Amino acid sequence: MPTTGKLNLEPGKANEPKSGYHSQFSKNTEKASPGFYEVMLDDYGIKAELTATERVGFHQYTFPKSSDSHIILDLMSNIYNYDSKNVWTFVRVEDNQTVVGYRETTGWARTRKVYFAMKFSKPFKNYGRKRYEKVEYNGFYRKLNENENFPEFAGRQIRAYFDFDTEANESIFVKFALSGVSTSGAMKNLEAEIPGWDFNQIKKESAAKWEKELSKIEVETINENDKKTFYTAMYHTMMSPILYQDVDGKYLDIDQNIHNAKDFTNYTVFSLWDTYRALHPLYNIIQPKRNNDFIKSMLSHSKHSVHKSLPIWSHYANENWCMIGYHAVSVLADAVAKNTTDADLNKMLEASITSSNLKYYDGIDEYLKYGYVPEDKSSSSVSKTLEYAYDDWCIAQLAKKLGNVSKEAEYLKRSENFKNVYNPKSGFMHPKLSDGTFKKEFDPMDTSGQGFIEGNAFNYGLYVPQNVPEMITMMGGKNKFSKHLDEIFTTEIAEKYIEQNEDITRDGIIGNYVHGNEPGHHIPYLYNYTNDAWKTQNRVRNIMQKMYSSGVDGLCGNDDAGQMSAWYIFSALGFYPVLPGSDEYQFGSPIVKSAKINLENGKKLMIKTENQSEENVYVSKILVNGRQVKNHILKHSDIANGGEIVFVMSAKH
Amino acid sequence: MPTTGKLNLEPGKANEPKSGYHSQFSKNTEKASPGFYEVMLDDYGIKAELTATERVGFHQYTFPKSSDSHIILDLMSNIYNYDSKNVWTFVRVEDNQTVVGYRETTGWARTRKVYFAMKFSKPFKNYGRKRYEKVEYNGFYRKLNENENFPEFAGRQIRAYFDFDTEANESIFVKFALSGVSTSGAMKNLEAEIPGWDFNQIKKESAAKWEKELSKIEVETINENDKKTFYTAMYHTMMSPILYQDVDGKYLDIDQNIHNAKDFTNYTVFSLWDTYRALHPLYNIIQPKRNNDFIKSMLSHSKHSVHKSLPIWSHYANENWCMIGYHAVSVLADAVAKNTTDADLNKMLEASITSSNLKYYDGIDEYLKYGYVPEDKSSSSVSKTLEYAYDDWCIAQLAKKLGNVSKEAEYLKRSENFKNVYNPKSGFMHPKLSDGTFKKEFDPMDTSGQGFIEGNAFNYGLYVPQNVPEMITMMGGKNKFSKHLDEIFTTEIAEKYIEQNEDITRDGIIGNYVHGNEPGHHIPYLYNYTNDAWKTQNRVRNIMQKMYSSGVDGLCGNDDAGQMSAWYIFSALGFYPVLPGSDEYQFGSPIVKSAKINLENGKKLMIKTENQSEENVYVSKILVNGRQVKNHILKHSDIANGGEIVFVMSAKH
Repeated sequence: MPTTGKLNLEPGKANEPKSGYHSQFSKNTEKASPGFYEVMLDDYGIKAELTATERVGFHQYTFPKSSDSHIILDLMSNIYNYDSKNVWTFVRVEDNQTVVGYRETTGWARTRKVYFAMKFSKPFKNYGRKRYEKVEYNGFYRKLNENENFPEFAGRQIRAYFDFDTEANESIFVKFALSGVSTSGAMKNLEAEIPGWDFNQIKKESAAKWEKELSKIEVETINENDKKTFYTAMYHTMMSPILYQDVDGKYLDIDQNIHNAKDFTNYTVFSLWDTYRALHPLYNIIQPKRNNDFIKSMLSHSKHSVHKSLPIWSHYANENWCMIGYHAVSVLADAVAKNTTDADLNKMLEASITSSNLKYYDGIDEYLKYGYVPEDKSSSSVSKTLEYAYDDWCIAQLAKKLGNVSKEAEYLKRSENFKNVYNPKSGFMHPKLSDGTFKKEFDPMDTSGQGFIEGNAFNYGLYVPQNVPEMITMMGGKNKFSKHLDEIFTTEIAEKYIEQNEDITRDGIIGNYVHGNEPGHHIPYLYNYTNDAWKTQNRVRNIMQKMYSSGVDGLCGNDDAGQMSAWYIFSALGFYPVLPGSDEYQFGSPIVKSAKINLENGKKLMIKTENQSEENVYVSKILVNGRQVKNHILKHSDIANGGEIVFVMSAKH
Repeated sequence: MPTTGKLNLEPGKANEPKSGYHSQFSKNTEKASPGFYEVMLDDYGIKAELTATERVGFHQYTFPKSSDSHIILDLMSNIYNYDSKNVWTFVRVEDNQTVVGYRETTGWARTRKVYFAMKFSKPFKNYGRKRYEKVEYNGFYRKLNENENFPEFAGRQIRAYFDFDTEANESIFVKFALSGVSTSGAMKNLEAEIPGWDFNQIKKESAAKWEKELSKIEVETINENDKKTFYTAMYHTMMSPILYQDVDGKYLDIDQNIHNAKDFTNYTVFSLWDTYRALHPLYNIIQPKRNNDFIKSMLSHSKHSVHKSLPIWSHYANENWCMIGYHAVSVLADAVAKNTTDADLNKMLEASITSSNLKYYDGIDEYLKYGYVPEDKSSSSVSKTLEYAYDDWCIAQLAKKLGNVSKEAEYLKRSENFKNVYNPKSGFMHPKLSDGTFKKEFDPMDTSGQGFIEGNAFNYGLYVPQNVPEMITMMGGKNKFSKHLDEIFTTEIAEKYIEQNEDITRDGIIGNYVHGNEPGHHIPYLYNYTNDAWKTQNRVRNIMQKMYSSGVDGLCGNDDAGQMSAWYIFSALGFYPVLPGSDEYQFGSPIVKSAKINLENGKKLMIKTENQSEENVYVSKILVNGRQVKNHILKHSDIANGGEIVFVMSAKH
């Protein structure tokens, strides 16, 4: 944080302007584009501009004339409670332009160490640090004045500062590199990626890299807003997983040891309960090589995991066990089905099998024993049973690919476990107890304590992507099922059922359908399996228009590492991966006028529409490479081989 | 800690038997020899036996019959206050016989991480851990039962346990390897050093390694007790510095990065204010190769230090700044003077010069400005001035060796700074203020606030080893100086001056002479520079007999990483390095009857006595290779080339 005037290391309070080093700013002075951000810090008259390479941030701070200019390095700042989360901090001032160090935190990632190296374009004239924790033992360090100009400091709670004289309009640049390995790794990253000081050059290169990725799909839209929304969503899908490897190939893995990536690039942040649904399938179209690296990163994780299992939700060489399921298997199966990975299939199957038998995780022991997760043994039992059964289907696909007949049969059988939690009497997937009876008090509208997590029986109870037809039959046939879907979209949720939750906005709800969270993302496409496919077309266009924009309220819920946006990209193009792990997509109704998908294999997929308009949300005909499609199904090969999809749009169904 | 019965993870209180897992034991059941310890844990009927290789501890616990046997891994236990010192702990149970992890602590070493790998000879049937700190955020880990049989745990305060069924007299073996690098490094160390399970074999090998080192000097003594005392002291001199490098050459250095030792072995724990005096000079006789590695470790430290300086008191890749002086330069100069190092002399000089100009350390800025450390600017100013001046003389020797005339002259001049704190009026080295006047209130008996640290003006004021003759002249000539020495040994210290200090026992004092701490260790030898050398002979024999034994009270003060014992070894052989950094020793009076020093170059130095007895403490004649020595000086070349020293002893001087 750049400041001027009397040094203030306290951040200040948001509702008390000038109470700390924080600055007020006007939204008018903000400029943001991929790889660049700019803002005027009004309290100090400092213009802040930021750009980046893969591993290195590049800051430009343009100061007023001052003999009291500062750049503050706040190593206490943290999301939520820094006091309990900051574990240790170590800083070395290598010379009057170079600082390295690390901070170790606990929390979402329980044991997380982030190393850094920063370089200033101009020597600081003075520097120092303040320790904010109670120091119970200081040994012979007490002899030293560590507060000022002492080049090495460590502790739990540290803020540091660097002082400069600045002329009017003088820019000070800061390069700030990260590493998960070491400070020397961070320094290597810094020197490799930004050897010089040309901010505008790096800004330009960063823009070019983004342009290249965002141009993987070129769209024409009905209006300018839709185009903005589309590329905003594209941008969102590329925020994570994040690169987690130094330029020299070294990376920290889940065993807390340093490894060398030989034939892949290591990534972290796998929010898999969210992202297996549409984000990884999207990567299999626009970023297959990167997705292949994600898979290899997951295999490295399982190799070094003490459980030998694939990540559930991995984050900076930690497993945080967030949400349910072992959905990495879906990512593997999807890439295998779509032929986008060269990872070892035997290792994939082995790691998947291990993941699906991790008895101490989330009721799997009981799932194996009972064929469902009993609610009295492990809560959110229906969600778990449904997701496990789907994941098991994915594992069966891997076994099938390998010709492992017995494993295929075993996992196909497991994939039918969804049937064990269907209660014909209530007509819902219904929490079942270990004695085989269904839970007596049951409210299918309630998201709390009813066997589901972040969803209710109406929504989450439809999660059988691996066998939608059988689910429909089980639930009374196509017409009844279609009405169930209507009921979801039209029944208002009573106030008492709405969770106060950081994940979903109130606008993210249509009736009882919650688009602001993931477990229902396939629901609008389920009409395709009934006789009312036109309702899918209507619903998806409606959701795209109501729940996505390029404004600050452009998402109706947590983007969840890109899944919310990936839903939009697919739907905007007119199809959606209801069953990741298969090579099929369900057609919906495109919002674009046309699109060109520039595949990594050099081929192009053209998406065209006829009679496209805001009102013409219905699809009267679909031609794939001139061949009419009547079953609402798009095969992946029709994407991967390039070609043309034509949607003929209509105002009527 | 092995236990039986109901699991108790609390250590218990020392004064409350059976209040925790601690066990009572009888001293009668203890057996200890180099590389081995055995004790009977009476509370449990468990026999504990311990041996080790360089990096791996090997435990044998012989249990009674029990279905409730445990081995506890207490990762909270720490010297002093664990609550504030334990920073983070990480443990993985790799399989039912293998556990790895690390603990990170702050304290004496501010940022210390010790990795481990342990292997049990028998699978445990059950295991678990308890976290003792308040866990403010537990995320989705709350879903898991981490208390029992969950193979990965982390936190600030952890104790773990491993359960076994044991038959009567069944031994469970544990191999416990350490690393400063990583858990995989610890595992490599374990596998390389103890691949099998033969406890007795490792015990035998360990004994043989010790025998080899302890046999570097073979002595015959007047009585058996002296022999025990001698080898006890030898053992003590080999406790540290400690090996700090994995079997594959990797080590953590002061920059907190991992490095690869190519042409040396890395060591840590350099307690230099203590050990430069006699311990490193001793290594230059009996362990020159290891001392050369110490020097290279120090050069690696300075290379990777943010200060580019040599260690002051380095410890597990930390500088703790303990005590005063930059005495690594003495270790370098001593090895150069004795031709025992092949380290780069230019690098040695450069690192030494940097160390001696570290302005933010302990008044060096003022020392350079004033030619002494002014007491009003930096306390313990006289001790600092004297030690710096001596260290500067050492640097001059390095410069001289390199033919760097200007640096030699510069540092020889600095080495005369001792004169600046001599007050002819008080007749003492006397704290001087920045205005050039001497401190008015001054008590040469007081160890507190009088310009000295862990010593007073009587004792510490004689620290000018680089120019004893000039000091003697300055202080009034040989006779007056000899009386000053007498006064030291005969003036009783008043009770009020005796510091309550963990470093010195009450028995470590003769008159006002404090042998239980280091700054006076050369004093008994200073009579050699007067006309009363016989008093040196008398004093050193007296100190050896009174202040050293093989009993539990066998040292009169903190051994200080071996310095207290090194004093004994030298004195027992009849000479002492009053001026480390030179190639000379001062003769005293040997306590051995004879000694053979087996040098690493294959040569032998024989030390022989005639008329040796407990009463015959005076040396009437010394022959070095047949040549009579009259100036009390032994040259290092007379040691290194092997040969013979004969002391003719007498009851009269």
